[in-house]
Amino acid sequence: MRKYLAELLGTYALVFAGTGAVVIDHFSGGAITHGGIAITFGLIVMSLIYTFGEVSGAHFNPAVSIAFTVAGKFPIRDLAPYILSQCIGALLASGTLKLMFPADQFLGATLPAGTDLQSFVMEVILTFFLMLVIINVATGSKEQGMFAGLAIGSVVALEAMFAGPVCGASMNPARSVAPALISGHIEHLWIYLTAPIIGAVVAIPIWKFINNK
Amino acid sequence: MRKYLAELLGTYALVFAGTGAVVIDHFSGGAITHGGIAITFGLIVMSLIYTFGEVSGAHFNPAVSIAFTVAGKFPIRDLAPYILSQCIGALLASGTLKLMFPADQFLGATLPAGTDLQSFVMEVILTFFLMLVIINVATGSKEQGMFAGLAIGSVVALEAMFAGPVCGASMNPARSVAPALISGHIEHLWIYLTAPIIGAVVAIPIWKFINNK
Amino acid sequence: MRKYLAELLGTYALVFAGTGAVVIDHFSGGAITHGGIAITFGLIVMSLIYTFGEVSGAHFNPAVSIAFTVAGKFPIRDLAPYILSQCIGALLASGTLKLMFPADQFLGATLPAGTDLQSFVMEVILTFFLMLVIINVATGSKEQGMFAGLAIGSVVALEAMFAGPVCGASMNPARSVAPALISGHIEHLWIYLTAPIIGAVVAIPIWKFINNK
Amino acid sequence: MRKYLAELLGTYALVFAGTGAVVIDHFSGGAITHGGIAITFGLIVMSLIYTFGEVSGAHFNPAVSIAFTVAGKFPIRDLAPYILSQCIGALLASGTLKLMFPADQFLGATLPAGTDLQSFVMEVILTFFLMLVIINVATGSKEQGMFAGLAIGSVVALEAMFAGPVCGASMNPARSVAPALISGHIEHLWIYLTAPIIGAVVAIPIWKFINNK
Repeated sequence: MRKYLAELLGTYALVFAGTGAVVIDHFSGGAITHGGIAITFGLIVMSLIYTFGEVSGAHFNPAVSIAFTVAGKFPIRDLAPYILSQCIGALLASGTLKLMFPADQFLGATLPAGTDLQSFVMEVILTFFLMLVIINVATGSKEQGMFAGLAIGSVVALEAMFAGPVCGASMNPARSVAPALISGHIEHLWIYLTAPIIGAVVAIPIWKFINNK
Repeated sequence: MRKYLAELLGTYALVFAGTGAVVIDHFSGGAITHGGIAITFGLIVMSLIYTFGEVSGAHFNPAVSIAFTVAGKFPIRDLAPYILSQCIGALLASGTLKLMFPADQFLGATLPAGTDLQSFVMEVILTFFLMLVIINVATGSKEQGMFAGLAIGSVVALEAMFAGPVCGASMNPARSVAPALISGHIEHLWIYLTAPIIGAVVAIPIWKFINNK
Repeated sequence: MRKYLAELLGTYALVFAGTGAVVIDHFSGGAITHGGIAITFGLIVMSLIYTFGEVSGAHFNPAVSIAFTVAGKFPIRDLAPYILSQCIGALLASGTLKLMFPADQFLGATLPAGTDLQSFVMEVILTFFLMLVIINVATGSKEQGMFAGLAIGSVVALEAMFAGPVCGASMNPARSVAPALISGHIEHLWIYLTAPIIGAVVAIPIWKFINNK
Repeated sequence: MRKYLAELLGTYALVFAGTGAVVIDHFSGGAITHGGIAITFGLIVMSLIYTFGEVSGAHFNPAVSIAFTVAGKFPIRDLAPYILSQCIGALLASGTLKLMFPADQFLGATLPAGTDLQSFVMEVILTFFLMLVIINVATGSKEQGMFAGLAIGSVVALEAMFAGPVCGASMNPARSVAPALISGHIEHLWIYLTAPIIGAVVAIPIWKFINNK
């Protein structure tokens, strides 16, 4: 139960801060800027890893939990409760934002700027590299593990920075499902439910090959 | 006395740099930008933790000192002198800014952009997560402790980044009381005196449950 | 083979994210900004070092591989496969960007803003200091090695930040050759093929003298 | 000689990148922005500390060398050669920028935006806190020493961020003397030769008291 609560609270914080940055950027007429939103997403992931990494592994992302399970690094009996905790945390965060900013239409939902295909491909690539970083630092040397928060938070920040204007840079089904459901904009949600899981799972055999496992 | 001086100097630096960034942003016609102000707040907290963490614990925030006391991790006899040192440091910083920038009207005081209730709720949530990060890294493994400055500074930076346009992202009664008193704008001060303390204290039972203490 | 794949994937990620930031900045009408592009380059290098440093040394740059060989810190038999892997990774990244953003003219190719000489001199200086940082942290104490990602990623970010508007801040022949070839803009490519190698190699005797090797 | 060369090269890099950012911001019509300049200064100091910290102590600043001497932590016989190396490095950097950007009028010289007194007081305060951070992390526990680059680079970045628009945020006589001499703008140079030294030296008795030395 302790680790499920950590996943719920961590995903709440991630979605509340990250999609909150999008909502409050609108609320304030652009004070935060795209760069500020990307930095918010990166820093919340980084600080949450140092906070909850030793409790729950600090996934906060169903695609990450599924890929760890495929890699044999996460017990399958914990997979459903982890994904459930992450989705509940995300939904509570989007619900809080809805109550605090009732005039906001999208609540930070991820939407493709171009074609669905362009965003789908981008999300697969983004999550592939995110998972490659995550599983290498999480299963590597003690020094790599110490810097896991910095390395993973940096990937989230830079991917949100460069790819956000194309696809929203979700990399996380829980982060996308919550604002989509609460705001009612579910028309492109299938991209963000499938592409991150595909990208994360594809990283596992590459990681195995590179690390000779 | 050594640790009280560290708290006084640290809170002076925090308020001088952080609210100074707000004052000088006005002075310069917006050169620093909202993002620059948020980064200033995060980096000063990060560097001060590496500077004074081993002397005083690097609280610089009455809400943090109170929550540590509630958690049984801080001696109650030090609470009043800590809060006093923090407030003196903050007041001296706002006084210095008043002398250096006499034309500035607000001195970086925190003010709600929307309703008082919206800012109150936001400050509770911000300080809840700030304290959750602080107490987890401060009482966790040696590795967590080493990265405390990075983790806590990052939370301050990101919370100032995404929530600053709503409520000022105080998370700290000393940071808010000093510019309010010196500038004479105390009309919303009650929010910043109460909400951060509530948010920080609520984090304690959650931390106890998650870490099985 | 494992380390060659790490170099290929790492250079792919570096070029996809870094030059992708340039491409998507155009795509989005400037949402990322110059500062966001510089931060993207720095963070991808930092996170890749923590990911692949222990597998391949995390060069991702022919100039770095050549300079390490000159320093006697890299086996000459690995030099050609490393450079080949880096160039294949970079070309695949530029090819992916071409497929995803067929309307983009330059694909993030590096181009001099002023004279060729000005950019040549700047690239020599930039890569000299980059290599000086790399070889000092890579061959220094255990603590220096732990912070290699932070130190090297920071140099990449700051050099891209301050020198990007002059010469594009390549510091890396693979990063420049791929978008130049794929986009067909090879008129200034000679600068970025020669200057980074000269700068990186010149750093080696200076490093030897300073460290008494 | 090895450590003098490290100080010369490090101060060259600091001035070339930091004041170069100011010069190239003009050259490019503002592409770098004030925030980008501040981040450049902070990151170059951070990476240089991880590069040269174990060779020369990574001062790159006459005010820091003088304050360490006053603290009894630096041999007085090294003081003159250190300051000389730092000034030569800074002058060579400003000279390089003059050759590369002959049209630039100020070469990144520090100039007060308001009154001389305002900038003088600001520089004293900035360098006081910079030196307080430096000497605490440099003489503290092993963990503090490991994070010295991060802590000190962060102070430089944040002080340049919030105080740059007032006084230029020099904190370093070598950083100010070189562009002033090479560009011929020495009318306010006295501020930047005196205030940082005063601020740094005043930090020493405070450090001694707080650390019971």
